[in-house]
Amino acid sequence: MVASTARKLDELLLSDYNHSHDYGGVSGARLAQRLYELSKIGLTEENGSYRIGFSAEEQQAKLLVAKWMTEAGLDVTQDGAGNIIGRLAGKQADLPVILSGSHVDSVPNGGHFDGPLGVLAALEVAESWKKTNHQPEHPYEVIIFTDEEGARFNGGLTGSRAMAGSIEADKQLGLVDINGASFQQVIENIGLSVPSFFAAKRDLSKIKAYVEVHIEQGKRLEKENLPVGIVSGIAGPSWLRITFTGAAGHAGNTPMDDRQDALVAAGELIAAIPHLPPSVSPTAVATVGKLQVHPNGVNVIPGKVEMFVDIRDIYEDKVSELVQLTIDKAEAISAKYGITLSYEQTLKVSPMLVPDDMKNLLTVSMDEMGIKPLYLPSGAGHDAMVLGSHIPSAMIFARSKDGISHNPAEWTTLDDCVQSVHLLKKMLERLDKN
Amino acid sequence: MVASTARKLDELLLSDYNHSHDYGGVSGARLAQRLYELSKIGLTEENGSYRIGFSAEEQQAKLLVAKWMTEAGLDVTQDGAGNIIGRLAGKQADLPVILSGSHVDSVPNGGHFDGPLGVLAALEVAESWKKTNHQPEHPYEVIIFTDEEGARFNGGLTGSRAMAGSIEADKQLGLVDINGASFQQVIENIGLSVPSFFAAKRDLSKIKAYVEVHIEQGKRLEKENLPVGIVSGIAGPSWLRITFTGAAGHAGNTPMDDRQDALVAAGELIAAIPHLPPSVSPTAVATVGKLQVHPNGVNVIPGKVEMFVDIRDIYEDKVSELVQLTIDKAEAISAKYGITLSYEQTLKVSPMLVPDDMKNLLTVSMDEMGIKPLYLPSGAGHDAMVLGSHIPSAMIFARSKDGISHNPAEWTTLDDCVQSVHLLKKMLERLDKN
Repeated sequence: MVASTARKLDELLLSDYNHSHDYGGVSGARLAQRLYELSKIGLTEENGSYRIGFSAEEQQAKLLVAKWMTEAGLDVTQDGAGNIIGRLAGKQADLPVILSGSHVDSVPNGGHFDGPLGVLAALEVAESWKKTNHQPEHPYEVIIFTDEEGARFNGGLTGSRAMAGSIEADKQLGLVDINGASFQQVIENIGLSVPSFFAAKRDLSKIKAYVEVHIEQGKRLEKENLPVGIVSGIAGPSWLRITFTGAAGHAGNTPMDDRQDALVAAGELIAAIPHLPPSVSPTAVATVGKLQVHPNGVNVIPGKVEMFVDIRDIYEDKVSELVQLTIDKAEAISAKYGITLSYEQTLKVSPMLVPDDMKNLLTVSMDEMGIKPLYLPSGAGHDAMVLGSHIPSAMIFARSKDGISHNPAEWTTLDDCVQSVHLLKKMLERLDKN
Repeated sequence: MVASTARKLDELLLSDYNHSHDYGGVSGARLAQRLYELSKIGLTEENGSYRIGFSAEEQQAKLLVAKWMTEAGLDVTQDGAGNIIGRLAGKQADLPVILSGSHVDSVPNGGHFDGPLGVLAALEVAESWKKTNHQPEHPYEVIIFTDEEGARFNGGLTGSRAMAGSIEADKQLGLVDINGASFQQVIENIGLSVPSFFAAKRDLSKIKAYVEVHIEQGKRLEKENLPVGIVSGIAGPSWLRITFTGAAGHAGNTPMDDRQDALVAAGELIAAIPHLPPSVSPTAVATVGKLQVHPNGVNVIPGKVEMFVDIRDIYEDKVSELVQLTIDKAEAISAKYGITLSYEQTLKVSPMLVPDDMKNLLTVSMDEMGIKPLYLPSGAGHDAMVLGSHIPSAMIFARSKDGISHNPAEWTTLDDCVQSVHLLKKMLERLDKN
């Protein structure tokens, strides 16, 4: 199944589809066909997606969706950061905009649902309104944010940060991509410019709310046997770089009681870290994903170990508490072994809590659909996290098969995709009436 | 001091030398001059030594020592493996040979004492006998073993293993050096051949004993304030490659109670390992020196960790016990975390215990010198380990400053060097009378 996933995405998706989900102008077949058409752009040998930010493939995917936007009756524009916006006029032109969308870039050899589902779900709502001759009170915009994944510059959330005006110019212009090209060169290659990029900053007070559909990239909905869920908050990552410096030495000639083995200290910390998050918050997580041993020779006692701890929660104070607990533990271990400790917080992204009124609108909508509302945190960052610091923002998660993501095997059934469209539609219509 | 070490090795060594150690025909000045002359061959910018096995520099060093051997009245030959032998006839020609020496190759940017001291100490004994008109009963041979360090082919002990006939032809001829040259090409470049190499195997029953002086490469003599010590045994390394395979996942989206983090399991094992050797043997050591995390991304739960455990003791049964304890611990941890474990013993070199009668001869000699006899294991492998499986072999360690070795800062004072010569001389003379 996985091997032929992308080549036949439309047929595979439709094969088990429950057509009773086609109602209110929403079409499963159209959504499947569009997921399939997008999957062909940047298709890898393993049937994954290779559409990194600012690439020709990302551009091609944006143009294809822009064509569909136009066909759906939306007025399409591109801002200076390359974000594509398809606008439907509201009955009341002076009301603030209701915004929905996601991204179409991918990680290298990623999946076909992370990003495209959120863009196509927002577009499908517009299609359904067109079909049922419904015009919202507020203007409605479907958005494709540029370079969400950040595979190109080890950054990400570029389009949404540009729109929010939260990008530091010096830092952004200093970036160099995997091929050695500067940020300026890269955006000029696709017809943008540095002045246009920073001019993409928008007056966010003219946006009423942002709602994003996304695949869960976890297994919680699958475990609860639910097609969709309500995101309670987005846990921005805090990264700690911890370095233990002991003394390298000959593995044979140094007695056990005369060692300053940096890896033994690191090992004790790594084994202790999983016990810390549950003591702080049920939604908190901490992970040592990256570790380098120096000199890393079989017969040499490690003189230095550098490790990174990724710490997340949806509550900012709990993140700070967990960072401090990790540092305290590292200090205790360094004292125990007589090993030098240094640490630095290399990344700190504030978490975003979804406002209660936004969650309530989703809860009421799910009750109406007869689906148990489950609230779950998002451990991964999303464009909604960026907008959420400025305007009311919410997210809907669709069930991910086996929780697999950033991988060609990423999968969400068409039933679940379409249920996420219905939930988004109900939510947007409630927002529109509010 | 370190910066100018090698350029002025003779002056530096002589500057603090206690000339009362010049007695019985042994000359500190000659030993210092020769250490200095050798240090100039392959001298690195950091004043280290670059004389890897089978290199032009190793050849040049061998030729220089061969010249000194000839001047000392020894009959010099080279065997088919490139080992250089300087022979002094014994009064009784049919007695087996007493053998002493070491090597003159180094690791890249190594020190100037590891190897050369053993060769020059053995030669200094011959010089002292020449000066005092002493001819031993047994034939005496000073030997330079080829490629002890093994920097070229990641092997080592090549000359002594060739002489002992313990080299597997298929394996040796399949070796490729750091420049892509085959073992055959490399030895042909210095005038040897494959047939000559394997013809270097010698009838070891015609050798009475082998005694090697070497720097300690550890801090035990320094701590005890002793110039020299008696090696109790050589701990051959056993290497275990241990692989934990869990499940990679998103560091943000995977709850703490739904993880199979391979690095957490590895960390617990790494922290547990230092507690195992003391439960088995006071001389045993175990080290995790090398570790690779996959995929090693800050925000990815490690799906796989491969680590190497280097386990050593001078008692073979204790090594086996420690290997088993390590595997038991790894199995308990893999069961605890529900993580797959696999392991393989990738190296197993039998330890060598120095026979009691050899140790006793050294003990009596040290008593005579008024130096407290300290018995210490060698954690590093040496040519004496190879010969020790076939003939009675012993080693004398000379104190290493700060225990530093395989480094330009490697240092042994001339007093300690000369004391090692006196101890070797007394030992050899006792062996000769036995």
